Formats: sequence, C-alpha cells, structure tokens
Amino acid sequence: MLDLDLEGLLTEVKALNPAPKTMVVQFPDGLKINLREVVERLEEATHAEVISVLDPCFGACDLADDKAKKYAADLLIHFGHSKLYHAAVKTLYWPLHYRVSEEAIWKIAGKLKALKVKTVSLNAASQYVKDLDRLSKALEREGIHAEQGKTKSALERGQVLGCDLSNPRTVEGAVDAHLFYGDGLFHALGLLFASKKPCYQFNPLLMEWVDLNQYHDKFLRRRYALIGKAQEAKTFGILMSSKVGQFRKKIAVEAKKLIEKHGKKAFLFSLDNVNPNALMGLGIDCWVNTACPRIATDDAGLYKEPMITHEELKVALGEKKFEEYVFDEIRH
Amino acid sequence: MLDLDLEGLLTEVKALNPAPKTMVVQFPDGLKINLREVVERLEEATHAEVISVLDPCFGACDLADDKAKKYAADLLIHFGHSKLYHAAVKTLYWPLHYRVSEEAIWKIAGKLKALKVKTVSLNAASQYVKDLDRLSKALEREGIHAEQGKTKSALERGQVLGCDLSNPRTVEGAVDAHLFYGDGLFHALGLLFASKKPCYQFNPLLMEWVDLNQYHDKFLRRRYALIGKAQEAKTFGILMSSKVGQFRKKIAVEAKKLIEKHGKKAFLFSLDNVNPNALMGLGIDCWVNTACPRIATDDAGLYKEPMITHEELKVALGEKKFEEYVFDEIRH
Repeated sequence: MLDLDLEGLLTEVKALNPAPKTMVVQFPDGLKINLREVVERLEEATHAEVISVLDPCFGACDLADDKAKKYAADLLIHFGHSKLYHAAVKTLYWPLHYRVSEEAIWKIAGKLKALKVKTVSLNAASQYVKDLDRLSKALEREGIHAEQGKTKSALERGQVLGCDLSNPRTVEGAVDAHLFYGDGLFHALGLLFASKKPCYQFNPLLMEWVDLNQYHDKFLRRRYALIGKAQEAKTFGILMSSKVGQFRKKIAVEAKKLIEKHGKKAFLFSLDNVNPNALMGLGIDCWVNTACPRIATDDAGLYKEPMITHEELKVALGEKKFEEYVFDEIRH
Repeated sequence: MLDLDLEGLLTEVKALNPAPKTMVVQFPDGLKINLREVVERLEEATHAEVISVLDPCFGACDLADDKAKKYAADLLIHFGHSKLYHAAVKTLYWPLHYRVSEEAIWKIAGKLKALKVKTVSLNAASQYVKDLDRLSKALEREGIHAEQGKTKSALERGQVLGCDLSNPRTVEGAVDAHLFYGDGLFHALGLLFASKKPCYQFNPLLMEWVDLNQYHDKFLRRRYALIGKAQEAKTFGILMSSKVGQFRKKIAVEAKKLIEKHGKKAFLFSLDNVNPNALMGLGIDCWVNTACPRIATDDAGLYKEPMITHEELKVALGEKKFEEYVFDEIRH
C-alpha cells in the first residue's frame, strides 16, 4: 500500500519558519496521479505559490534545485526519494513508503530458513526501507540474525541505490547472504555484483522470491558481448549528465584520454535525458556512459551501438581484465 | 546553400585572450550532422576540452548557459542562432547563413512589382538576415523602396523571431506591405498579426511565394474554436518554461490569479520540453502556455485539451474581446 503521508507533510511544511512563499514541487512520473491533490492541499494549508516541475525525474540524483533557484522558491519539495544532497535551496525530501503485508515477511523468513541462512543483510530501495526493522524483528524471532549496513553517507540504514551499494559492503564479512527487498532488477543486480555472498531478492509488489545468483553469468555474458563490440569501435561518444547527482565530468575526461591513448577518437557529450533518438546521426561507433549507470545496465538493448560503462571501457581497451568486472557505481 | 563559416569561427576562437580551456558547444538538432567536424576542428585548433550539449535546443532562447557554468566552461559556442542574451558565461553566438540564389531575389522583385508595392519592409529569420541588404539593393534598382526595421533590442536589423515582431513595427507607418524572407509559418504568421498591412512570404528553401493574408481568417477561426473549448474548462494548467529566454513567471502567476478570480482552478507547471506525454494524467481541462509561443500556435493540434496562449485566456474568460486578438510575443 502506497503511503504518501500527506498529513505529515502538511504538518512539516506548516511548521516551517519563515513560512515559504513560493514552493517548487517535484514528482517522479509514477506519482503524477497524486500531484493535483498534493498541490491543492499544499496551497490550502500555506497560501504559498506552488509550481510543479513536470520535467522527467529519475531519482534524488535528479533534484530540481536549479529550477527552484530560477523560480526564486524558498522551498523545494522532492517527492518519492529520500535525501541524497544538501541543495542550495531549502529542500524537503518526501520519500514514498509502501507498507508491505505480514505475509511477505513470513514468506521471506520461510525462504531464508529453508536456505539455512543464519545471518542475512537486509537491503531495500528507499520506498521499502521503513519496513526493514519490522522484517528484521520477524527474522530474529525465527532464529535468523539480520544486519542492515550503514556508511557515513546520506543513505539510510539498509538503503541501497542502483548506483550506490556502499551499505551492504559494511556488513559483507558478517553475513551468509544478502537480501534485496524491492522491485526491479537494477538495485538487485548491483547488490549481486557488490558482494561475493549469495544474493536474493524479495519483490513486495509481485510477492515474488528471486534467486539473484542465476543472473550472475547471464549478465556477464551480455556485458562481454558489448565489450567485444566496443573493441572494434574507432569513434567513441562519452555521455555525461549535468544533473546534480549524475555529474561525473572527471571520469568522462579520463575516459576520453584513455581512448585517445589507444589511438581512437572520442567526443564528450552532455545530455540529461539520454534516449536513442538524441544519439542518432553523430557517427559514433560506441557509447561510454558516465551518466546514470542504468542507461548502460538496463537500457543497452535500446541502442544500435554498444553502450558500455566507463569501467567496461577499461576492459575493452585492454587496461583491465574482464575477471575484475566492476558494476558502475556513483558513491553519494 | 548552408554556410557554417567554420574558418571564420576558428579564427575568432583562436583570437580569444585568454585562450579558452573548456568549451561547451550547443547545436540545434538540424545541425548535428556537422557536429563531429566542428568539434574536431575546434579541438585541433585550440587543444581545449570540448563538450557538446545534445539536449534539444529550440533557439537562442534556449541557451545552454547553465550547463556551461556546471562544466566550468570558459566559452559557450551557440550554433545556429544569433545573439539574444548576454549570458553569465562568455558566449559566442554563431548563426547559420543560407546564401540564396539571384533567381529568388528576382522572383521577389517581380512579385512585388506586380502587386504595385512601392515601399516594403524586409524581414527575415536569423539564417536569412544577411541576404536582406542584397535583396534591398535589387529591389531599389527595380524602383521598390525597401525598409528594414530596427529596435534597440539585440535583434539584427530586419530580423524577426516567431515570438518577437518588434522590428517591423518600427516601419509599419512607412510601408505598403511587409515581406518575410524565410521558411516555416510561425515567424510569418507573427508578422501577419503584428501588422495591418498586406503581408507576404518568400520561402527560399522551396523558392515559393506565399500570400500570407489568406491565413488571417483561417488562423483566427482555429484559435476561436480553441478559446470556445477553453470557456468550458474548469481546471487550467499553466505551462511555464525555465529556459532563459522563455521564462515568464510573472505572466503565469497573473494568469493563475485571473482564472481563480473567475472561480476556476489553476495549477502552475514548469516543463522545459513540452510534449503531450508529459501532460497526461494530470486532470487538466485546458492548457495555458507561457513558454515558447510556438507550443500553442503551431502545436495545439497535438494536445487533447485546448492549448491556448495567455492572451487568448483573457478572451476565454471574457476579460477581452476576440476582436482585440493579440499574437503571443516575448520581447527580447
């Protein structure tokens, strides 16, 4: 069940001193159906001017802080993702929380018991992270010890992003296996490649248990095929994003130098919403992605030319062995 | 014939002191086929780092100055449009010039003579504006006096934008007719509605003479139909752009107040690349555009709900008579 906790939000906004006069609110696409109600309630409660940003939003890495500045907003409310950055504009991150059924929790406990896992690390995307303590207690009652990793970063305890797997690494030595609690495969695959321990996923939307270990070799074979094609490329296009949490100019410039060192051509491109149409007609044989890792990991199939990560580029150019495969991460 | 004058550009860039170390270059979609050559020549000539912005670009109003700042560029080169803004980053506008055949010029002279036009104002989009002096001289030889309007704005003499018709207005009293020299209908329609004199277009790409006056009533009928639908709307979505040259927050906020004064609901939306998909599922009955006027003027047919300008909103709400129809402009 989706819990937007609108009352909680209104209480928090009304408590702000000074009261905001102009608010910019940012909704990910999946939440737009709630936009009207949220804005009406915000306007009623505060009498502030509310501007809703409809530009695509792919995560807290995609914060509309530049737009909030342009509109001279004194508050930015970012819906659907938890805090990742301290922005120049006062920002209220308002994550979503799905409350998952007891049944899901017992299903997980049963699976882990059957797999004889004694200690497990619990990991979740932001919208499920609030359920981890409930899950943890239930598992302890079943004799399974649960850990939730935490680094000094802005991530919550147990939270993973598809591009930031730093939390589970802090407990890697202490667990028999990792569990990712959430939907989609991007975060789950990241976890799988961040660890040498068995990895499982429970998808609370589909109520589905997934043995992630089956994807290990399949994923690597697909990446190897792309790297093979990249080896034949003469002209590389390096993709950069100017979004606050995807800005990796340093890595992009390094990639360009590496390509040129190998006698090949490289161009630096900045593009915020990467899509096949925008990349057409540029005469590029291979794309090296330094923007959101998902572009290369999930979406490579959309592109005619190979779409690889900057880590995979090192393999393609023979600077690194394939055996040292590294999933592309952006540490926050 | 398209003339990018690459040698001229390289000379200008090489003469810059201090020499730029990081350049951001911005190409409109139609020029991307030239991107590779331009970037290679720039890199060879300057040894600077060149980052090409691939985000959609719809004019000089859509300057990538924010991105140039993010990449700490010391030069932004904006291709395809002439200077409109003094940006915070050093900016070189590099407009395109099409050189038009003598035949086109004689065709125009013949048409104007046949129409018994004694004095004409010459107006062109930026890529044709360099040809106006040549055209002017040819017309004078044929006994037709030609004027090119000029205000104090950044626009060149005789230049019109689809959203800025201030130049022809300065010569309105002195001419029998206006000529728009360029392709497309957006600029031409603007000229038609900015003047009470007969208006003609010569399209140098199609070598086609167009009597614009035929569009006057047809265009108004279409707008009247949209305004009629807007009158039935209960909930309005006001579209704003955060792009440097399309930023009209004041107008958007005024529109919201006006709608609310009439007991209807209004929401402020910010969206840089307006498209039907991004506007779906928001429960809006009518869109009021304050971003690029072209969205309402050229693209209204793409949207299920009526898409009107902020000037048309005044008519829909009964604040203004339809007879006082005003084309939406952004004065630069």
